Amino acid sequence: MANATWTRRHVLSLADFSLGEYDTVLQTAASFQEVLSTRTKKVPVLQGLVVANLFFEPSTRTRSSFELSAKRLSADTLNFAPGTSSLSKGETILDTAKTYLAMGADLMVIRHREAGVPQAIATEMDKLGVRVGVLNAGDGQHEHPSQALLDLFTLCCLVNPEYPRLKLLSDKKIAIIGDILHSRVARSNIWSLTASGAEVHLAGPPTLVPKLFAEYGSGCRSRDIKAGKNLITSFPVKASIPKPKSEIPNRKLFIHWDLESALIDADFVMTLRLQKERMSTHLLPSWREYHQRYGITRTRLKLCKPGVKVLHPGPVNRGVEISSELMDDPQFSLISQQVTSGVAVRMALLYLMGSGKPELKNGE
Amino acid sequence: MANATWTRRHVLSLADFSLGEYDTVLQTAASFQEVLSTRTKKVPVLQGLVVANLFFEPSTRTRSSFELSAKRLSADTLNFAPGTSSLSKGETILDTAKTYLAMGADLMVIRHREAGVPQAIATEMDKLGVRVGVLNAGDGQHEHPSQALLDLFTLCCLVNPEYPRLKLLSDKKIAIIGDILHSRVARSNIWSLTASGAEVHLAGPPTLVPKLFAEYGSGCRSRDIKAGKNLITSFPVKASIPKPKSEIPNRKLFIHWDLESALIDADFVMTLRLQKERMSTHLLPSWREYHQRYGITRTRLKLCKPGVKVLHPGPVNRGVEISSELMDDPQFSLISQQVTSGVAVRMALLYLMGSGKPELKNGE
Amino acid sequence: MANATWTRRHVLSLADFSLGEYDTVLQTAASFQEVLSTRTKKVPVLQGLVVANLFFEPSTRTRSSFELSAKRLSADTLNFAPGTSSLSKGETILDTAKTYLAMGADLMVIRHREAGVPQAIATEMDKLGVRVGVLNAGDGQHEHPSQALLDLFTLCCLVNPEYPRLKLLSDKKIAIIGDILHSRVARSNIWSLTASGAEVHLAGPPTLVPKLFAEYGSGCRSRDIKAGKNLITSFPVKASIPKPKSEIPNRKLFIHWDLESALIDADFVMTLRLQKERMSTHLLPSWREYHQRYGITRTRLKLCKPGVKVLHPGPVNRGVEISSELMDDPQFSLISQQVTSGVAVRMALLYLMGSGKPELKNGE
Repeated sequence: MANATWTRRHVLSLADFSLGEYDTVLQTAASFQEVLSTRTKKVPVLQGLVVANLFFEPSTRTRSSFELSAKRLSADTLNFAPGTSSLSKGETILDTAKTYLAMGADLMVIRHREAGVPQAIATEMDKLGVRVGVLNAGDGQHEHPSQALLDLFTLCCLVNPEYPRLKLLSDKKIAIIGDILHSRVARSNIWSLTASGAEVHLAGPPTLVPKLFAEYGSGCRSRDIKAGKNLITSFPVKASIPKPKSEIPNRKLFIHWDLESALIDADFVMTLRLQKERMSTHLLPSWREYHQRYGITRTRLKLCKPGVKVLHPGPVNRGVEISSELMDDPQFSLISQQVTSGVAVRMALLYLMGSGKPELKNGE
Repeated sequence: MANATWTRRHVLSLADFSLGEYDTVLQTAASFQEVLSTRTKKVPVLQGLVVANLFFEPSTRTRSSFELSAKRLSADTLNFAPGTSSLSKGETILDTAKTYLAMGADLMVIRHREAGVPQAIATEMDKLGVRVGVLNAGDGQHEHPSQALLDLFTLCCLVNPEYPRLKLLSDKKIAIIGDILHSRVARSNIWSLTASGAEVHLAGPPTLVPKLFAEYGSGCRSRDIKAGKNLITSFPVKASIPKPKSEIPNRKLFIHWDLESALIDADFVMTLRLQKERMSTHLLPSWREYHQRYGITRTRLKLCKPGVKVLHPGPVNRGVEISSELMDDPQFSLISQQVTSGVAVRMALLYLMGSGKPELKNGE
Repeated sequence: MANATWTRRHVLSLADFSLGEYDTVLQTAASFQEVLSTRTKKVPVLQGLVVANLFFEPSTRTRSSFELSAKRLSADTLNFAPGTSSLSKGETILDTAKTYLAMGADLMVIRHREAGVPQAIATEMDKLGVRVGVLNAGDGQHEHPSQALLDLFTLCCLVNPEYPRLKLLSDKKIAIIGDILHSRVARSNIWSLTASGAEVHLAGPPTLVPKLFAEYGSGCRSRDIKAGKNLITSFPVKASIPKPKSEIPNRKLFIHWDLESALIDADFVMTLRLQKERMSTHLLPSWREYHQRYGITRTRLKLCKPGVKVLHPGPVNRGVEISSELMDDPQFSLISQQVTSGVAVRMALLYLMGSGKPELKNGE
């Protein structure tokens, strides 16, 4: 497994991921995918290590995926359940993390409804001079890097399952449809997919796809730093925003308020989950109206390239973001593959973070 | 371990269990009971497999029993916790199951308060052509097959601990007391105990022991299909109702509205848990009155055969279904043995389902 | 590992701990601390054993610590979650414990908000003649022995990390500050720290540090049995109160209603968690006022011996029991070490209880 070059202690954001890092994750995930096809499925590479799943925001799907990934690497897992936690007793989030550190956690998988929490904890851990690794499993509307990496792995494997790598997507058109503004999945995917050289087209209602996103795209590098990038990172907690890698050329990012122009000739269509609570804030019409204007159906996919595939991070609101029959059609839907890729990709991340043991980089 | 003949992918109901299947489960459980008496207690037979416990209806007792059974077979376990689930986010139950399938679950243990849910999920899994096995851990008022099989194992081991098999009960009289109408435990036990050839006597208040149950018994095979059997299966979800095995002769099933006639000369008395919520629906008098009329006490057991034993699936309402002192008296109570048998029987079921890997039967 | 002399089946209270038992725990914990510093961190000593964590009172911190300890001894763990339990269905606590026993639990770690519950369950288990061990993980305001033992281990390791033993503290002055009256942590620590021969000084508001505590100290052995000791044990559940070991000389225990006299020349300062709910019962002024009178700050520590260290069982109310900056200052704070010690000490307890397998002592 190729991890000689891995020097990253934490995985918090894809904003500053290098091309080499993407490919290391993809190739390591491919190795684990192979392990998962054998009878035993387990490897002893993280034996003795403890992975603490600190899910301050509840999640079954993602927590189970990380838990299984850790177990298949032979790590021990600890689950923090918010309902039965010391938080109700007035302890700070950082104190909780420090407690798990002191107990012996080697890796912390953190989800929180506030953007920046995993980053803030990672910064504090580095200050303490400890070698724990922090993995952002979704922070507010900021990022969800493991989700974007599993999406990337799913897409690259489709092009070349034996040898998935970032550049396989360089000539693709990818449409991301829905509530971009509030989506941590979209933000992480924008970094990874544009880094591959693919054209990324965002589409949705104007209230949910602000113009500033486009300015983050090609030819807007200077304003980008101020407005567009803040919009993409949207970081309320004080933390150093990572600097995008200069090795990545101008990102090809476009916005659309009509669905059709985003779909035309698309190779892949990524739909995003709609949050019910957006409706009450008048950012969205009814679900039915949303489906009529932005819902993905078999008919609409005719605008795309032949062989187009559809992704969704789940859980799906059937008949809203995507028609129910399309979701269940293996000819189009990659939803199951995404979940399956999730285990291999999370095994890769935990393995790289846990066995790489890079020296502490101060002030990261 | 005898599993050469096992061809069942799912365990959803005992209605169509064959005599051979009962004996295979009993003998496999006996082997595991032996393993559990050794120091190590674990066997590596399901190493690498993932058992997903999808308990949409909360349960500590049954979930822990399945979790421990899986661990002792060296499988990895994933627990779905309804409180922190995606269900509140609008995902369907089937989508949840598919997510765990895509993550790599080999076996799914499913509990749901609606009858037919495990069956419906199993049907969908078969349609997908995947080899996952579904085990019904209690669905509404329909069935709870692993509970009935552990009851069966407990009783057969009492007669012959070295070589438990179904026919050991053929000349026994077994009384099942209480809320038959709403009990999935009773329904599953009716299938297994009558299949053994035992006489099964149901007793309870007329509101909770409808006459139609009797018609399911001996000599009523034709009407049975319509009324009695529907009553026993009570299947709201559209799913093919399994056909009772023709190899099993007329079932000896009787109903009683007075406790005494059911208890006379009984070898075993199985009491059922009363649900508090039945009281509010006027199906039941007060708990105290219930205990006076149908509660099992040491005095009442004098009507039974000498050496009579009492079962209860737990948790017990002490002093309601059974007197508190009787419950704690090891001379009569099999309650602890039932829980102990539960681990061996569930190990047997998971092992048979997980290692048998029968070819997919279409349209099952 | 020194466990030839260990004969205790249950760990419920430190009141009757012998000098030899303290040292066995300390030395076994030191061995495990060494194991934890190796790469593998796991030992196969409890393979096949089942540790059931029955936390009737929710706790993340302590439950995770026990869970990790059990896993590192290669035991299997079962977690009882109160939210999804049968208790809401009317089952008694003892029935729950018996169910886990019947399932195969070898050790039970029990927390309950009522004093005496673990003791009562242990007594019942002994009556049943079974060899399960019960560990009190906190019962009401009574005791929390594993917390006091990890505090003891932390302090002894500070004096001599290679060879921690009780008598290392014999010439120390230790101040325990805060809500002594309601603290199970304080009660257990009073037994262990006075047993070492250290001077223990309790300080806090008169409402929370009743005079009777002092009478439990040196020179009051007779009244002690009646008033002081009951205050310290405060045992509502009927259970035999353990007899303090006669081998332990007069305990040096003092009370103070002003903070300063307790702090003067102290070697160690142990602060206790304040429960918010005490405020509403008029036992406490405001948090702010409390901090002004009894909060530990860097300035106040100048009264103590040079090199003084501060302990807190966690979770901390920052800025109440202890100033936030002091809590985070590794020069003074032992809070992280306490959590780390917790894993080694709990491994030691589970190992001694689980592998010692002493013969059943009747009427214990």
